[in-house]
Amino acid sequence: MKKFYIAKARRLRGTPFSSRIEDQGLTAYTTYNHMLLPAAFEGTEKEYFHLKKYVQVWDVAAERQVQIIGKDSAKLVQLMTCRNLSKSKVGRCYYAPIIDEQGKMINDPIILKLDENKWWISLADSDVGLYAKGLASGLKLQVEVSEPDVNILAVQGPKSFKLMEKVLGPKINKLKFFSFDYFTFKGNKFFIARSGWSKQGGFEVYVKDREAGLNLYDELFLAGKEFNIKPGCPNLIERIESGLLSYGNDFDNGDNPFECGFDQYIDIESDINYLGKKALAQISKGGIKRKLMAVKIDLDKIEIMEEKPLQNGKSLIGHLRSAVYSPNFKKVVGIAMIKKEFWDKKTTFELELNGKKSKGSVCDLPLV
Amino acid sequence: MKKFYIAKARRLRGTPFSSRIEDQGLTAYTTYNHMLLPAAFEGTEKEYFHLKKYVQVWDVAAERQVQIIGKDSAKLVQLMTCRNLSKSKVGRCYYAPIIDEQGKMINDPIILKLDENKWWISLADSDVGLYAKGLASGLKLQVEVSEPDVNILAVQGPKSFKLMEKVLGPKINKLKFFSFDYFTFKGNKFFIARSGWSKQGGFEVYVKDREAGLNLYDELFLAGKEFNIKPGCPNLIERIESGLLSYGNDFDNGDNPFECGFDQYIDIESDINYLGKKALAQISKGGIKRKLMAVKIDLDKIEIMEEKPLQNGKSLIGHLRSAVYSPNFKKVVGIAMIKKEFWDKKTTFELELNGKKSKGSVCDLPLV
Repeated sequence: MKKFYIAKARRLRGTPFSSRIEDQGLTAYTTYNHMLLPAAFEGTEKEYFHLKKYVQVWDVAAERQVQIIGKDSAKLVQLMTCRNLSKSKVGRCYYAPIIDEQGKMINDPIILKLDENKWWISLADSDVGLYAKGLASGLKLQVEVSEPDVNILAVQGPKSFKLMEKVLGPKINKLKFFSFDYFTFKGNKFFIARSGWSKQGGFEVYVKDREAGLNLYDELFLAGKEFNIKPGCPNLIERIESGLLSYGNDFDNGDNPFECGFDQYIDIESDINYLGKKALAQISKGGIKRKLMAVKIDLDKIEIMEEKPLQNGKSLIGHLRSAVYSPNFKKVVGIAMIKKEFWDKKTTFELELNGKKSKGSVCDLPLV
Repeated sequence: MKKFYIAKARRLRGTPFSSRIEDQGLTAYTTYNHMLLPAAFEGTEKEYFHLKKYVQVWDVAAERQVQIIGKDSAKLVQLMTCRNLSKSKVGRCYYAPIIDEQGKMINDPIILKLDENKWWISLADSDVGLYAKGLASGLKLQVEVSEPDVNILAVQGPKSFKLMEKVLGPKINKLKFFSFDYFTFKGNKFFIARSGWSKQGGFEVYVKDREAGLNLYDELFLAGKEFNIKPGCPNLIERIESGLLSYGNDFDNGDNPFECGFDQYIDIESDINYLGKKALAQISKGGIKRKLMAVKIDLDKIEIMEEKPLQNGKSLIGHLRSAVYSPNFKKVVGIAMIKKEFWDKKTTFELELNGKKSKGSVCDLPLV
């Protein structure tokens, strides 16, 4: 596949850490929420093995926050998601599908409850802030919607626990999964969550003071030498194997949360009020006709830029949406939207790419 | 400045024309509305001279459409813009600032009125569709908001008129600036507007049928040989010289439309209803404290990724937001947000980049 440069401009915003990662061997960027997101250093496979064994620091400032404050903030946040937040607690993170009135996906952020009247929505790649502004204006809600200058550093990998303890003290490892708290480094307070877009364990540091963030960044690399620390980024192999879905890749505004397997984050029973509740109740009644599943394909490499049809004989069984070669399975692994008649795990298919046919099979998510 | 590749994925959608332009010498992409937008072929300067003399075809499918249909569609479109659309006509295009309730910019699209109850908003880079969905749900409007599979091919440059006449017949040159109509090529109907993101003249073809669009694309290059046709893309030099502003580069959600010089598209007098009207009336009363202006700087090259402070002695006079070397002025030209005390065209300033100071001066927009 041909390679092209990315044309930089103010519109694709740099992050406080861009200059660091560009000096640390970055080779490719993607964009996410109108911001640069690192996409490759030494290569996806090398980075995959490293991530699973050591510790990486990721510049994921592109996971922008929508901040919603004010007396109607809880109401507005609940309006946008089918996850029941009525018993949500300050200091906790909630993975939550954001949907429109038709019950179709708009985003799948982590929602952080900072206070009864202060929320952050830590975004996948779409302007949920504009959705929130539209709703707030239409319903005359007492809220302020903004994008604060908060930039996330993720520390991911099995050695992240030892590294963070070394830098921030033992209290950090009392943090439970999907909880957050405040920690001090060299006199600066950092908001840190035990979370991250890998299943290898780790933390996300929400950096408010850019200078302090750079100091922490440098300290992590100094202190991390003994743990073989490297700069990294969300890893395509690791995230597909782990079943971490990606908005825009695996699902989009054409799909509903049931089709994405988000059933545990959908509440159509209680009396909470959110957009798309009627649509989801309707879908739930009729049952879905397709859902996201994992696939394995007998190939030793793949690059897809658009969804690809999967055929079983003359039947179209679904579409492949993300795929990568897994050195673990020694095959290509992927995420595909599969029609109901073919959910049986034994379903096999053929994928045609560049005139060549390959065989594959459907399996459950996650693969590992 | 270091160069980095763009990491492709389904999330950064390709266009129907991606395979064509990648074979025609494309070297760099940017992203825009979650889609790939070509950013360089032979280089900005060569492309600039070519655009001003001949004709180029641009794959600007990334100018996505928000389609709003239904009995409340006119109401919803008007709610989002401070431009008075009450006398708008079917078949016309309207450049219109989209603002939020605080009177801050969200986008600066072309709004096309296809029918009394059918509108397309041809976007700059932000998810205005989500803003529209939020408003429609909040106000319970009878509308459908969607992103149709429409992909724009721009034909730009002084020879575009002769080329389009050759391919589509003489009727095309009866089209007035910012009007659109339907034209037939090989049995397929195309929606074509006399518009485009350059001041060199030309058209935008809204392609609905991908196959038909590719046929037209190929025909344009065949028929265009005698006019020295080339593939191209929005040109940084041409657009800065012409004063064509770019959302995300020159202005963003921190700026209001008065500061962007959009006064002629702001109506706070008549009784139309839009969000942010109160805020704009307030701003108009107090007067703005800064506005976008052109600048010239004594440099023979520049690349900026973030806004840069401009100093007059100890006074900060404003911030440079876009800049490029202009072979026409034999200087760097740029767009800057300048404080009121320094609007005088004779204001000079110093810009410090990489430890080196350069001199510049403020001027009116557009430069040519």
